[in-house]
Amino acid sequence: MASTVGKTITCKAAIAWGAGQELSYEDVEVAPPKAHEVRIQIKYTGVCHTDAYTLSGKDPEGAFPVILGHEGAGIVESVGEGVTNVKPGDHVVALYTPECKECKFCKSGKTNLCGKIRATQGKGVMPDGTSRFRARGQDILHFMGTSTFSQYTVVADISVVAVQPEAPMDRTCLLGCGITTGYGAATITANVEKGSQIAIFGAGCVGLSVIQGAVANGASKIIVVDVNPSKEEWSRKFGATDFVNPTTLPEGTSVVDKLIELTDGGCDYTFDCTGNVNVMRAALEACHKGWGQSIIIGVAAAGQEISTRPFQLVTGRVWRGSAFGGVKGRSQLPGLVDDYLNGKIKVDEFITHRKKLAEINEAFEVMKQGDCIRAVVDMSE
Amino acid sequence: MASTVGKTITCKAAIAWGAGQELSYEDVEVAPPKAHEVRIQIKYTGVCHTDAYTLSGKDPEGAFPVILGHEGAGIVESVGEGVTNVKPGDHVVALYTPECKECKFCKSGKTNLCGKIRATQGKGVMPDGTSRFRARGQDILHFMGTSTFSQYTVVADISVVAVQPEAPMDRTCLLGCGITTGYGAATITANVEKGSQIAIFGAGCVGLSVIQGAVANGASKIIVVDVNPSKEEWSRKFGATDFVNPTTLPEGTSVVDKLIELTDGGCDYTFDCTGNVNVMRAALEACHKGWGQSIIIGVAAAGQEISTRPFQLVTGRVWRGSAFGGVKGRSQLPGLVDDYLNGKIKVDEFITHRKKLAEINEAFEVMKQGDCIRAVVDMSE
Repeated sequence: MASTVGKTITCKAAIAWGAGQELSYEDVEVAPPKAHEVRIQIKYTGVCHTDAYTLSGKDPEGAFPVILGHEGAGIVESVGEGVTNVKPGDHVVALYTPECKECKFCKSGKTNLCGKIRATQGKGVMPDGTSRFRARGQDILHFMGTSTFSQYTVVADISVVAVQPEAPMDRTCLLGCGITTGYGAATITANVEKGSQIAIFGAGCVGLSVIQGAVANGASKIIVVDVNPSKEEWSRKFGATDFVNPTTLPEGTSVVDKLIELTDGGCDYTFDCTGNVNVMRAALEACHKGWGQSIIIGVAAAGQEISTRPFQLVTGRVWRGSAFGGVKGRSQLPGLVDDYLNGKIKVDEFITHRKKLAEINEAFEVMKQGDCIRAVVDMSE
Repeated sequence: MASTVGKTITCKAAIAWGAGQELSYEDVEVAPPKAHEVRIQIKYTGVCHTDAYTLSGKDPEGAFPVILGHEGAGIVESVGEGVTNVKPGDHVVALYTPECKECKFCKSGKTNLCGKIRATQGKGVMPDGTSRFRARGQDILHFMGTSTFSQYTVVADISVVAVQPEAPMDRTCLLGCGITTGYGAATITANVEKGSQIAIFGAGCVGLSVIQGAVANGASKIIVVDVNPSKEEWSRKFGATDFVNPTTLPEGTSVVDKLIELTDGGCDYTFDCTGNVNVMRAALEACHKGWGQSIIIGVAAAGQEISTRPFQLVTGRVWRGSAFGGVKGRSQLPGLVDDYLNGKIKVDEFITHRKKLAEINEAFEVMKQGDCIRAVVDMSE
């Protein structure tokens, strides 16, 4: 096979031409990486609610046409000038939360929210302000700095990390978002203490990973709250000790009441993995007075706001959030892949559905169903 | 003088007979302390907005008739059976946030919100469910476990701490609420780091004390936000580096914009000392992405709620609160009195007005004026 280095690659991608439309499986031209950019052959990608949210048109910052996808693993095809952190042939995970190690945010040591390319990433372009994707004669936007719904993508060098080649890429792709987000929220953002009593609202990929993190940190009581009764089995499989279905509580008993009863006063930590602002409030108010912390992970719809009485905070509850689990992608993701390989983090169990890229719209469909935790898309034709 | 031990003492108090009425200066009978109770001769008391709030009738938990006051210093007159932490003659400060050292809260090490007598304190009675005050032939309720607007009061033994007798009581009384609340919010709840940039909303007694705490912890930029221009001089006297008057900002510039500009990205810590829920939101949103923490100290009116977009938290801001500055009264207040005696904490400067108990309604009046920081009431006749 002739080398593709330095040349535009024509390959298949699932393009979102407009809000509310199905993705279109078609040819895309992927330009070679410029300085400090990396072209990746994506092997597997997950499909996440954030992709569906932007595709729906509800995301006010969503712009089209765009190549979505932010949970991808693949192999570096070529690198632009000045790239030193990965090389062709490396097995990598794309990072929608980059890590430059140089900006105010990275240097602070207090956050994983790198600021270096935030502005251009938000606009759907590479750091130089242009796109590497063309289809039907026009530029196609990038998404979250990753655009993993293309067989080849170009990302900034700070938006990619090499991981152990022995880790199967249909698993490592899931460490690019959902699993890491939940696991990190419990082990990094909250850093749940041994013996803690916690509650998790929403038992999807993120919520189940919060369970894993809580188990790893030695939580003594792990309560999952979900309106879908089939999630009880899932939750217990990952280590939950209790399951509460708010729809089956006795008249007059709120989920907050129930959690306070189960924990004799309130939870030490709660996690919202639903994106529902009313659930976020309940998660805060189910925290123990004096020290309970509630961590918002779910992404709320545009314009939605959270509310509570300030007394909830004055009496010691803490309201915070977590993005990508507080995980610094380049520094910490290889460690999570190690943990997966050593059996400390479950990943295989999350994969309930598999699709080919040409069938990606089916992956979006199954995601809306209660029995789907994660659909992994095989990018080969 | 005949001993009063074991006898009911008749003395003067300022009684709140009903919501919205002036306090009535009149005789009250103060029963002797029962087991684990302490009778204190109050020498000085501060007047705080919380007293005015309850007196106004806006506090849904406020009940009448009651003896208000929670910022008091005095001398132990007698103790009930089993009291070991103070003895007659001790100079003490009354603690509306008690510390039993035995309950789940005290043992947690994570909070100063002791739970032991919370229920009865909230109802305005002693731990045995009864009152020690009588006037006009009826029981008068206690307030915040302290009721310092009486020449003699009875408190639970866990609601009082002995302090150095060389500290003047017209100063130590102020360590019973406002000064400690602000100072502790900065040094304990937030534990402001050296070099931090902080903003304080509201430059009353609490806000000025937050400045003191921030100075003690080495904050590099201390911005005070207040609509009263006379507070600039006050703020700078306590160590503020900048003053922002929201009413004089250019059209289209919000206080959040201004604070983000002054700090090149947002504050590391902000403190609400206003009780206004809109200000609380601004204080949160003026925090730096990734790590900024906003601490609510002010008490909002009943039914008021705080709101924000959850994105503010997901991107790393933390919303919390502080009660009595996170200070554990019995363990930590003597240390603050030492700091005062050693010149590390300003107290004298807060006293702008002095009144006699018979004039206490004037103290409430001056509190509403912008030039009053603290009015101290001399309890002698």
